[in-house]
Amino acid sequence: MTDVHVIGIGMTKFGRHPEHDAAELGGAALREAIEDAGIDARRIEAAYCGHVFQGMVTGQRILAHEGLAGLPLTNVENACSSGATAVREAALSIRAGEHDVVVAIGTEHLTSRFAGALTPDPSDPEAAVGATMPGVYAMRARRYMAEFGMSREQLALIPVKNKRNAARNPLAHFRKEISVADVLESRPIADPLNLMDCSPVTDGAAAVVLVSDRALRRHGADRAVRLAASALRSGSVDVEPTSMTFEPLTHNTANDAYEKAGIGPGDVDMAEVHDCFSIAEVLRVEGLGLFEQGAYPAAVERGDADIGGRLPINPSGGLLGKGHPLGGTGVAQVVEVVRQLRGEAGDRQIEGARVGLAHCRGGKAVGIEGAACTVQLLVR
Amino acid sequence: MTDVHVIGIGMTKFGRHPEHDAAELGGAALREAIEDAGIDARRIEAAYCGHVFQGMVTGQRILAHEGLAGLPLTNVENACSSGATAVREAALSIRAGEHDVVVAIGTEHLTSRFAGALTPDPSDPEAAVGATMPGVYAMRARRYMAEFGMSREQLALIPVKNKRNAARNPLAHFRKEISVADVLESRPIADPLNLMDCSPVTDGAAAVVLVSDRALRRHGADRAVRLAASALRSGSVDVEPTSMTFEPLTHNTANDAYEKAGIGPGDVDMAEVHDCFSIAEVLRVEGLGLFEQGAYPAAVERGDADIGGRLPINPSGGLLGKGHPLGGTGVAQVVEVVRQLRGEAGDRQIEGARVGLAHCRGGKAVGIEGAACTVQLLVR
Repeated sequence: MTDVHVIGIGMTKFGRHPEHDAAELGGAALREAIEDAGIDARRIEAAYCGHVFQGMVTGQRILAHEGLAGLPLTNVENACSSGATAVREAALSIRAGEHDVVVAIGTEHLTSRFAGALTPDPSDPEAAVGATMPGVYAMRARRYMAEFGMSREQLALIPVKNKRNAARNPLAHFRKEISVADVLESRPIADPLNLMDCSPVTDGAAAVVLVSDRALRRHGADRAVRLAASALRSGSVDVEPTSMTFEPLTHNTANDAYEKAGIGPGDVDMAEVHDCFSIAEVLRVEGLGLFEQGAYPAAVERGDADIGGRLPINPSGGLLGKGHPLGGTGVAQVVEVVRQLRGEAGDRQIEGARVGLAHCRGGKAVGIEGAACTVQLLVR
Repeated sequence: MTDVHVIGIGMTKFGRHPEHDAAELGGAALREAIEDAGIDARRIEAAYCGHVFQGMVTGQRILAHEGLAGLPLTNVENACSSGATAVREAALSIRAGEHDVVVAIGTEHLTSRFAGALTPDPSDPEAAVGATMPGVYAMRARRYMAEFGMSREQLALIPVKNKRNAARNPLAHFRKEISVADVLESRPIADPLNLMDCSPVTDGAAAVVLVSDRALRRHGADRAVRLAASALRSGSVDVEPTSMTFEPLTHNTANDAYEKAGIGPGDVDMAEVHDCFSIAEVLRVEGLGLFEQGAYPAAVERGDADIGGRLPINPSGGLLGKGHPLGGTGVAQVVEVVRQLRGEAGDRQIEGARVGLAHCRGGKAVGIEGAACTVQLLVR
């Protein structure tokens, strides 16, 4: 069975793109990834495209516009894990021996789909009684504060950290550093969460070129990064039980990935995690086993999760700072991990990073309906 | 590398299901497929779900409701090839060695999404100038008549045949035989196509259980059918050029499948093809190489494509007779092929069928935007 390697990465600026649609953004990211890989586009054998709200045959439109029509292409949707799922399925198609060079694209044009915040599906029974995403994460934040003594100021340090990182990322949606006071004084959304505790509505796309061992030998491995594991799980109330402050879905998916890769959480040098809200970063890094449960807020306060700290979390700026174009997010996380492991992250470079983790979690935050979680491990 | 085998099939009644949603229909089909396979549901390791219009995390909802939350699940969308793509990706995950027992589900609840016919996307520039699906297929029918001398009555024989087959299929949307006069007198849609030349708006779901060689040895191969090839291609104007009467996308995808399987069109004993309109069946069987170009209308007139004829086409009733719940369609085609190859098709059994083909084609009929095509070959 072949290993799978990332040899090219591309990403658009994240932000508002009123002049472009999701297919155009996806095409731009794809072109950059192909150029970064230094391969002839005609060597690409198949493609996967992750998005949520962009309608039928979005990926086929990208290929057609880029002169690559004819290739096998599958659009995938797993809520906020859609882009990460595209990476996983692309990797599986390589491991199956079906293809040697495959691209995974993630794209989303949210500002043309939603006027402000994302509105829940009208058929969603939980949202109808007020359990919207911000509402549920607010309850989880309150509960975490009660169980582990996290202060409101500690929670605010997470968007402060992530927007500080984003200020060093030329492709991030937000480039301005903020203070704890800015977070605390921003508009209340769902107590205790304010506007700056929430990820923004963002347009953007990212793409990666994945290859087999055989294609890597032809291509040369100088800048290649190995995708050591790409784990996926679904969830529901059965796997998201009574605790508001621990995520079995994240935990179980991470364990799948650690086992596949033969890597433990102690080996991880940096991680991009799904910080859709400030509290979400806390729940994720603890669910992933990267920090002890209850320990993360104090660790952030000490600077442990900073670039230059013990275990940098979301050096790209994360969803809070870089932005969150749903389908684009999971691929952009892999792009950031590859950039860091190659040592090409410029101002936000993590020295000596060799093992990186990318985590996405999409769908319902609690409840009976569906959720999806991905954990990918990359090794240089 | 392992082969992939179908060991279980399930399908809901196709038609109108006002009391159920797409997840419930998908769950019903999945339960039947698991029961048909005779396996413990806990042996299922992963799932793929194909649909077009059912919204985020539809597949995850199915798993959650069926007590299978936690499994890796990927939703896939490739327009009318969505269900067929779910089968393909499930097969790839087995060939990759990632899983041994995987289910593919296709589902769609169209009657809750569209009041009448499917309306084109507002951003579709071709539909905006009148090149809707019926409009484009009507032009192709006219052109085929001009090039090959097909009569309007010959074209009408296709829905007559497919609805005769559907009348023998207890799960078909339509159970009533019709005459050529019924087709010719039905409401005009886009000249020369009338209402009975068009596939209906249908709710429904289908599911299959796929296994590796290893799992098949444990399970027993008595009723197993081998998925010998599952080919996928995307398309655009680049691969759908000037001819209105030949489909390079169908032709090229079929050639991929024939090559993978080591099977030629002359080996095929029966086929389910994407007859979204009467003329579409003509274009597909000729693109697949099952009939010579220009020869199919006369062949239908002679009864060659009937159950009992030389090469039965759409014994299930096809999209015209069985119905066309977009995501459900591609999986239901595989269900019909497996039923026929097992010799379990009752009144519509094709004697001695050993090799079956399933063909789907989704997305734009001509034009610059995206299309997707799948061809699967199954062997007993």
